[in-house]
Amino acid sequence: MTDDDEHDSHIYLDTAASTPVADEVIAEMLPYLKERYGNPSSIHKFGRETTRAINLARKRVAEMIGASSSREITFTSGGTEANNLALKGTAMHVKSKMPEKNMIITSSIEHDAVLEPCKDLEDGGFVTMHLPVTDEGFVRPSELKNVISDNNVALVSIMYANNEVGTIQPIKELVEIAHQAGALFHTDAVQAAGKLPLNVKNLGVDMMSLSSHKINGPKGVGALYIRSNLKILPIIHGGGQEWYLRSGTENVPGIVGFGKACELANKRVGQYQEHVAGLRNYLVERVLKEIPRSRLNGLRTERIANNAHFTFFGVNGEDLIIKLDENGIAASTGSACSVKKQKQSHVLKAMGFSYEEITGSLRLSLGMHNTKDEVDRAVDILSSVIKELRELSPFESKYVAEMG
Amino acid sequence: MTDDDEHDSHIYLDTAASTPVADEVIAEMLPYLKERYGNPSSIHKFGRETTRAINLARKRVAEMIGASSSREITFTSGGTEANNLALKGTAMHVKSKMPEKNMIITSSIEHDAVLEPCKDLEDGGFVTMHLPVTDEGFVRPSELKNVISDNNVALVSIMYANNEVGTIQPIKELVEIAHQAGALFHTDAVQAAGKLPLNVKNLGVDMMSLSSHKINGPKGVGALYIRSNLKILPIIHGGGQEWYLRSGTENVPGIVGFGKACELANKRVGQYQEHVAGLRNYLVERVLKEIPRSRLNGLRTERIANNAHFTFFGVNGEDLIIKLDENGIAASTGSACSVKKQKQSHVLKAMGFSYEEITGSLRLSLGMHNTKDEVDRAVDILSSVIKELRELSPFESKYVAEMG
Repeated sequence: MTDDDEHDSHIYLDTAASTPVADEVIAEMLPYLKERYGNPSSIHKFGRETTRAINLARKRVAEMIGASSSREITFTSGGTEANNLALKGTAMHVKSKMPEKNMIITSSIEHDAVLEPCKDLEDGGFVTMHLPVTDEGFVRPSELKNVISDNNVALVSIMYANNEVGTIQPIKELVEIAHQAGALFHTDAVQAAGKLPLNVKNLGVDMMSLSSHKINGPKGVGALYIRSNLKILPIIHGGGQEWYLRSGTENVPGIVGFGKACELANKRVGQYQEHVAGLRNYLVERVLKEIPRSRLNGLRTERIANNAHFTFFGVNGEDLIIKLDENGIAASTGSACSVKKQKQSHVLKAMGFSYEEITGSLRLSLGMHNTKDEVDRAVDILSSVIKELRELSPFESKYVAEMG
Repeated sequence: MTDDDEHDSHIYLDTAASTPVADEVIAEMLPYLKERYGNPSSIHKFGRETTRAINLARKRVAEMIGASSSREITFTSGGTEANNLALKGTAMHVKSKMPEKNMIITSSIEHDAVLEPCKDLEDGGFVTMHLPVTDEGFVRPSELKNVISDNNVALVSIMYANNEVGTIQPIKELVEIAHQAGALFHTDAVQAAGKLPLNVKNLGVDMMSLSSHKINGPKGVGALYIRSNLKILPIIHGGGQEWYLRSGTENVPGIVGFGKACELANKRVGQYQEHVAGLRNYLVERVLKEIPRSRLNGLRTERIANNAHFTFFGVNGEDLIIKLDENGIAASTGSACSVKKQKQSHVLKAMGFSYEEITGSLRLSLGMHNTKDEVDRAVDILSSVIKELRELSPFESKYVAEMG
């Protein structure tokens, strides 16, 4: 049997890594891959029709997040670039105007797409502070309050929902604290979008990063919301596209698809929460009941709908996802983007997890495409694979000996 | 009649701005928009199949430019990002190792995607020198030789072929001069790719920028060739994709499409030159013969196959392309990316053109999709539109008075 034959039977439980592109999204993209191939900067018909398409997409993105105007949306090549633009673009602008504001505050559980730009800014003279989190991956507003009093903070960047354990952060409270101290606030909402109703005005954030491929749009496109009248500097220079903030010929089919995905996500967020959180809760319930020595990580309530994150004691998570894959289930130990680095999850470390707790962790992230039948099959397989692995595991004998 | 109805009858002569995506390219992309939606960083089946697809695309890009290994290809979101990565990534790395090398040499006719990153680097302490060009837009190697003797040059960046007038630069000679002076060499080959057989080894360049949508691939993807063992720094930080040089989830459908477009471009470069240069030469011949006071700009021989660039004296180029558009022809006055800036072409200025010569300029850029019949219709329309505009033009009476 080839990979292709297996495709339909595979159960995809890794929507935190990427999602299937919705059919309606592909349908809207296709004309821009086919007959509508103009460069939006061209003033002829071919250029005007792609400009109109980008304008509509921009409006749809703005609507999904409750922005006051399309003008507040800058398209990028994805969430990572949006985060880089927010962090570096803000830092560089603040540095040129108020060099005394040389501090950036973030959390210890951000995605590498925030942590690594921060490291780069440290090389450029900025000081970065990483707020600690609770053992459920929650950033306490009091922690921010404690450290921000100095008035030397340029930017606070805290993710809206964590990509590994799904914990939702108290963004509105954090924004108020940041603003009181004269700092700007950015949130990486890549994992929150489509799972929560987003409203930048209500939250009060100055910037928000979005990614298309996490919400059933195509890969290779994202956006940064930048509040009206907030000036930041570009990181990619050239022809002056995207309000001079992001040069390069626009990825028209990608932007069109992203716009449609935002429209769909916005319309169906209630349905998403009902369907996906419903399945997720059922999954969690069955796992905790049927699989011994299992634990759900993260918060129960302040948690995005698609995320389930477990520790299975006495199991190696890497072995687990390989075995699950062999048995037709696509899952993850944590951030897909960390796999190549083969490093232990900094998120779980920050949550105070032991080596064994980290090693035994598994993330199952669901989507609109999943069914109750799939969840049932997945739990059955998970249960038997874990049993099998535990029988082979060196942890197991240790555990049994300790429990003696 | 709506825009859509007109679509088939419109004659597209703006391939320097963007090109139609080839059917074979779309066909290869579609599975990666549909069932193959995995994140390449995931270790399960969905991730492995997208990783394989990227590997194949990388091999195809490497083959098109004669790179020794796929490892030398780094995918980006397009040509602009590739140029930014080459310039800033090199400058920042050299600065950290050899701070005395603080000069960058480029030409006065580069695309804004080179000129603007250079300006940004000037803010960071680099000195940029812009080589002059001949009135045909040619960079004389002697000009580089004259200024590079100081041994303080980090990087020379000269485009392979100009986007406005199509002049091909003597890259191999320029590379030798740069290397003798201990400088690295980058070329923006966005307009040259697909029109010339490219060979990085033969040229000796250290870096080369490519863009997908100029060679019948999708928008939103490009690549930077970086010679083996050459170290540069990333400009977008995060999960460590693309050899830690370009973080962010890979634009899998875009990369797949770009790879296929490179394969096609590589196979058909001879056919391209024959068909497109044949049509272009026929176009030029008819225009110069039938339209009074017209001039071909740029070099006759060292010129990419698709480019025809004219000055029509006594005509305003902006009016001309609007009239052409109304009559079903998509053309350009110059770089699409400069339109929004509404500035006069820096390329034509550098070539010593007068205000009137710049104002009267028109770029017609052809492609594989064009036919002799289209060229005939285009010349007929161009001829009558120019006649009409000249009758209305204030330049006309001036010209007639002067000639009088």
